[in-house]
Amino acid sequence: MKVVITGGAGFLGQKLAASLQEKGKLAGADGSLSPISEIICVDRAVPGEQRDGVTYVEADITSRGAFDAVVPEDTGSVFHLAAVVSAEAEADFDLGMRVNLDATRALLERCRTLERLPRLVFVSSVAAFGVAPSIVDDDTPVRPLNSYGVEKVVGEYLVGEYARRGFVDGRAVRLPTIVIRPGVPNKAASSFASSILREPLQGKTAVCPVSKDLAVWIKSPAAAVNDLIHAHDTPGEGWPDGLRALNLPGLTVTVSEMVAALGRAGGDKGLISWEPDPGIEAIVGSWPQGMVTERADALGFRADENVDAIVRQFLVDELGRSA
Amino acid sequence: MKVVITGGAGFLGQKLAASLQEKGKLAGADGSLSPISEIICVDRAVPGEQRDGVTYVEADITSRGAFDAVVPEDTGSVFHLAAVVSAEAEADFDLGMRVNLDATRALLERCRTLERLPRLVFVSSVAAFGVAPSIVDDDTPVRPLNSYGVEKVVGEYLVGEYARRGFVDGRAVRLPTIVIRPGVPNKAASSFASSILREPLQGKTAVCPVSKDLAVWIKSPAAAVNDLIHAHDTPGEGWPDGLRALNLPGLTVTVSEMVAALGRAGGDKGLISWEPDPGIEAIVGSWPQGMVTERADALGFRADENVDAIVRQFLVDELGRSA
Repeated sequence: MKVVITGGAGFLGQKLAASLQEKGKLAGADGSLSPISEIICVDRAVPGEQRDGVTYVEADITSRGAFDAVVPEDTGSVFHLAAVVSAEAEADFDLGMRVNLDATRALLERCRTLERLPRLVFVSSVAAFGVAPSIVDDDTPVRPLNSYGVEKVVGEYLVGEYARRGFVDGRAVRLPTIVIRPGVPNKAASSFASSILREPLQGKTAVCPVSKDLAVWIKSPAAAVNDLIHAHDTPGEGWPDGLRALNLPGLTVTVSEMVAALGRAGGDKGLISWEPDPGIEAIVGSWPQGMVTERADALGFRADENVDAIVRQFLVDELGRSA
Repeated sequence: MKVVITGGAGFLGQKLAASLQEKGKLAGADGSLSPISEIICVDRAVPGEQRDGVTYVEADITSRGAFDAVVPEDTGSVFHLAAVVSAEAEADFDLGMRVNLDATRALLERCRTLERLPRLVFVSSVAAFGVAPSIVDDDTPVRPLNSYGVEKVVGEYLVGEYARRGFVDGRAVRLPTIVIRPGVPNKAASSFASSILREPLQGKTAVCPVSKDLAVWIKSPAAAVNDLIHAHDTPGEGWPDGLRALNLPGLTVTVSEMVAALGRAGGDKGLISWEPDPGIEAIVGSWPQGMVTERADALGFRADENVDAIVRQFLVDELGRSA
């Protein structure tokens, strides 16, 4: 069975590819596990570090017909991770709409034409929520306050509708903010949440644009990858009708609590430079600080143990420390 | 000030045009009432009966650039009524997506380029709700179960986002089922709700495809037109952020109650042929039977008095009976 990962050169796409290689199997259309024959990572550019045994394909997914070329006829599974992130989609409205909305629809249309019904996992986000209580639940209405969030919500509805129509076996998951992302700061409004841990753990300075008491809903990269595969393999019957999207479990942590965990792991808190940015605080502050995730819990999705375990995972997986 | 009505050749568009002519004014960008200089009704075909003083323009709004031609640079107000109705959108997925979703987006993009910020009223529907309690409120999550509903919900989010961005002063209203529509049965799944009154009141037979105890949430054409104009003129500050859509007040009536009102108005109940259609019952049965509309009530939207008043309105306005 062929598996396509859009955004496959990104850090989460690469980790997902690695995990799929290790696992070797995914649920097929009939629900039983089938061996993976090829993993195809599609992205704007081929990554510097490529994994053996993975196919990398360079594509501009906003160009007409792009998915006809990169999603083979006999694809069984699609993980749609490609996106313009929050602060970038806010800065460039048209780019965000093209990538986050139009390309998602084009991918769904491509899925509709495949030989057999593919499973598709659409990565949505906590950013779907804007006007909302600080702790949301499975039935909190979705009122996003940034372009990225709107585009993700529209994607969720389209995935649900294409699923209802029998064009794709689609499922959408609202990922918490991923902490600790490896690499360097990006244009996600939540980029600081990784940065204030990642940089000081490596003796580098980080900028924190938000206040210490801001709480965020987080999940580690490894737990997020587990969630994506679990979202794929779980039977479709357990997913809600009418909007096939689930809030995923995570941890509520304040910036202060992250900084305390940094200290416990031997990081230098003095390396964090506090430079308030009202624009970033407004975007991230509009997101929920926690979720009651009964539906996802019942389907077997799981949160990390605590923020110290998340820091430990980074030290082992990314900095090569012993477990 | 120029006003564009899409779907302007339809019965609601024509009634709206008539009401705007009578009123002569609409709120401008600054909120104060401005004289209407031209009413432009855009539709697939020019209507057989044209109103004096109204401009009719034939256009395929799904063709590229269609709105550049039919929405003048100096347009101040847009009422977006054009849509592929529920049963038709269910029968022809691609047509529904092109008209209900793509054309809505194209219209929003056109609004973005106009000389000044236009007000736009987007007509959404009770069909936005699918998986929902039988009585919904302002905070009931929107989980549509038909293509029309999904396309309307996506339109609501886009209107809200274009409004948040300052591209258009957009407002979306979820209209109840309009009863009594003049004319003949159409492809709306709710078409029967008008038909079982309209046809017998004129001595003709009607088909009812649903059970007598099915309840629907209804509003008269005159009250709906009032709502559309009120939605336009109300200051934007009162509208909810994150999803700029309001449930509108209406009346909950069962099919039996409509038939009883038919009898009280002197119509022959024996002209109704009961022919159950599970497909129609499934679509309409997934819609709410009532709404608690606190936000719309607070903004001054109003329901009809009762079903007898709705029947009387039809007799006077459409059949020329004395009031």
